[in-house]
Formats: sequence, structure tokens, C-alpha cells
Amino acid sequence: MRKIHVIGIGAGDPAQVTAQAVEALNDTDVFFAMDKGEAKSDLVELRRQICARFIADPGYRFVELADPPRERSDDADGYRRAVTDWHEARARVWAAAIESELPDGGVGAFLAWGDPSLYDSTLRILDRVAARTDIDYDVIPGVTAIQTLTARHRIPLNDLGEPVLITTGRQLREHGLRGAAVVMLDAECSFLRCPPDTRIWWGAYLGTPHELLADGTVGADGERIATLRAEARARHGWIMDTYLLRPSV
Amino acid sequence: MRKIHVIGIGAGDPAQVTAQAVEALNDTDVFFAMDKGEAKSDLVELRRQICARFIADPGYRFVELADPPRERSDDADGYRRAVTDWHEARARVWAAAIESELPDGGVGAFLAWGDPSLYDSTLRILDRVAARTDIDYDVIPGVTAIQTLTARHRIPLNDLGEPVLITTGRQLREHGLRGAAVVMLDAECSFLRCPPDTRIWWGAYLGTPHELLADGTVGADGERIATLRAEARARHGWIMDTYLLRPSV
Repeated sequence: MRKIHVIGIGAGDPAQVTAQAVEALNDTDVFFAMDKGEAKSDLVELRRQICARFIADPGYRFVELADPPRERSDDADGYRRAVTDWHEARARVWAAAIESELPDGGVGAFLAWGDPSLYDSTLRILDRVAARTDIDYDVIPGVTAIQTLTARHRIPLNDLGEPVLITTGRQLREHGLRGAAVVMLDAECSFLRCPPDTRIWWGAYLGTPHELLADGTVGADGERIATLRAEARARHGWIMDTYLLRPSV
Repeated sequence: MRKIHVIGIGAGDPAQVTAQAVEALNDTDVFFAMDKGEAKSDLVELRRQICARFIADPGYRFVELADPPRERSDDADGYRRAVTDWHEARARVWAAAIESELPDGGVGAFLAWGDPSLYDSTLRILDRVAARTDIDYDVIPGVTAIQTLTARHRIPLNDLGEPVLITTGRQLREHGLRGAAVVMLDAECSFLRCPPDTRIWWGAYLGTPHELLADGTVGADGERIATLRAEARARHGWIMDTYLLRPSV
């Protein structure tokens, strides 16, 4: 039996790591990581900083997992099928790596930015891995980019007693804005399609030295945010951003 | 100028406190706390444990803030007005306490279970306090009960690329379930009104020694969860619970 921790390490600021995550980091022999290519080298560096800062005994190793190619598809059904196939391919790679790199009784870990529950497939893939090889896994929750966004803007997420939707750029484009919404995974500045009096609180690289914050309304500030985003993305080679939208009252 | 930290301290497990929160705890001279009565004494004790565990120099104080009476109202408009009046009354009490208990240049803090952005009015009230007296405040994000719920059940929050609604028991009763939803602040087991094949992942006292977890469908397991909840509430004198619902596929 091998043990696997899935550890939420916060949105980017190493100081967001919890005491529980520190304990799990120190319990780990092998960190499994996807090779996301050069563009994400800032994130790889940040991950190494977190390990260096919080792990007392430097006897751990990183094992890079090759990422199987993923088919792209534009329609929703095709997308879901492509992703499912890709999860299954990843599960094969992960199961083989866990068996070859981790001795029986060893402890491995996957690190997730923010929290492993939010637009992250580590848990879905590990569920498939567990069907292939004998592992026991647990999940250490982390501070998400959503909490970091509202903290940096010093605002509540929800209006008084009101709901808030966590959604994606694609969903926002397809269904429009029907109430307060946090949008993640939006490479297309989909907020620009919302009514001009929609209020927006935006943040990128939250908790890192590159952090950018902006707020206002889509009409008055949307284009400025889109430009800020494009320039930052060109400068750093990658971007992670999220934003809260509220329809005008 | 006085400095105020609003610190998210996680869902209940002291090990969920972040390095950033530990730093803010150690920076604080006076912790301001609402007196929530005997029923919440477990939470008061848990809060004291967190301070005792993470604060190196025990030179800090707790100041209990009397909670102004709150009018109850059943219609939505009356509810909002009553809450706004209550926030204003709280802001008066808080501003007076900050001025009398904290010297100029001193550092105060409010602790929030989970994260201060989520169904918590500390930030709304501090915004009113800042209009009355000269304070500068920042927000330290924390791990929420939502992340703790999904971690303990080892499940993703969202389905692949799909949105999830964060909402309340009242909203669920009024609008029904239209997609995946996390429900907070539900004293009435509103999940029982959902279709029987609705899937539910429920948790109470998350991250504490009293933690309870249950999952299944509303039809097969809803009554069992309602009974578990009622018994636990009677036993401990209070309960904090949350759950994720997904409509049947």
C-alpha cells in the first residue's frame, strides 16, 4: 500500500500554506508533478520555494510526469469525451510512476495551486489510479484564488444572504451573467460581453510578486483590464487570473 | 491610525491556519470578539486554542464586544433593512471599542471562521467603522468549510468545466436546485425538498473533533442526515454544517 497526499498549497503566496499542508509536505518522499513546459517555469520555481521553505529534511524528490497529448474539441460533448480519454491516459502514466518511483509503504504527493477541489482534475485522475493500483489518498484543503481575490480587494464574496456562482469563461459566454459570479479559467476576457454597468473586481498572479488588481465597471474599466491582462501575459509568458462580477443593482 | 487584521482561521481545525495568519496573529495586541453566548462556547474554546498554539508572546488580550439586539423579519426587504440597521449599530460599538481599547499605532484583529468573505459581515461592518474612526484594515484569507467539506469527502467541487453555486438554505427553498450547489447557513435541512435522486455530500463541525460526514442521495439518505444533524445539535448545543448537492445526471 502506498500513501498519496493531495495538497492545496494556496493561490501563490507561500505564506498561504497551512500548518496541515506543512505536515503533509514533510511526510512526503516523492512529489509528482506534471511538466507544463517553459511558460509555467515561474510556477515551478514557486513550488520549489514552497518546498524549500517548509520542508525540514531535504530528502524528498520531484518526479516529472509526462503529460499525454490531449485532443482539442470545440463542442461540449467532444470536449467531455476528449477530457475523459485524457484522464484515463494520465491515470495510466500516474499509476506506472507511483508503482516504479514509490516503494511499498512510501508516501507521494501531488501539489495543487489553491485547493484541489476547484477546476483541478487531480482527484478525478487519482480515483482512476486507485482502480489500477493499491493507493490510499487524502486531501489537504488550501486557500483558493477566490478567497485571495476578495481578501486583496477587501470585499465580501456574497451580497447579504445572496448566492454567488463559481463558473468559467466558457459558461459565462454561453449563459450570460444572472447574478454575482466568480469567473475562473477565462482566457478570453469574457467579462467584456457583460452589460457596461456590471461591476468587476479582477486579480492576476494573486499572492505572488507579479500580483495585479483592478476594479470598476465593465463599461468604464473593462478594456483597461483586458489591456493590463494582455500586457502582463506577454511579459511573463503566462497568466492566471480570476474575477468577481456583480450585476448593477 | 490604528491597524486591524481580519483573519480567516480556517473551518475549525487549528492545523488549517496559514503561515500568513500566524504572522497576523502574532502582530495583534487586541482580539475583538462577539459574545455569541454559551451555546458557542466550543467555538470560543477552539479560538483560544488557536491563539495559544500559534502566538509566541502571550501579551495579547481578548475584548468581548456586546452584540446589539437584532430585529427579526421574515420578508426579504424587512430582513435586509433589519440587518443594515444592525450593522450600523455594530459599527458604533466596534468604533467605540477600537478607540478605547487600542492605543494609536496599536494593532487589533477580528477572527473569522473559514474565510472572512463568505457569509460573514465583518468586512461590511468594518467599512462602516472606517467611516467613523481612522483605521487601516487588511484581510488574511482562510480555508473555508467548502474546501474542508470536499477535502474530507475527497471530491471535486465542480463537475468538469461546470459551474457551482454557493448559496443558503433560504435561497434553496425559494428557488430550488438548478445545478450543483453548496448550501451554507441552513438550519432547516432544506435538502429534503430536493428530488430524491439528488446526490448529497454533507459535513458538520468540519475539521473539529466532533466532525460528522455523510453522503448518498436525498431520497435514500436525507432523513438519516436530518436525524444525525438533530441529534448532534442537541448533544453539542450548536451546529455548523454545510453540504454539496448535485442534481441526478
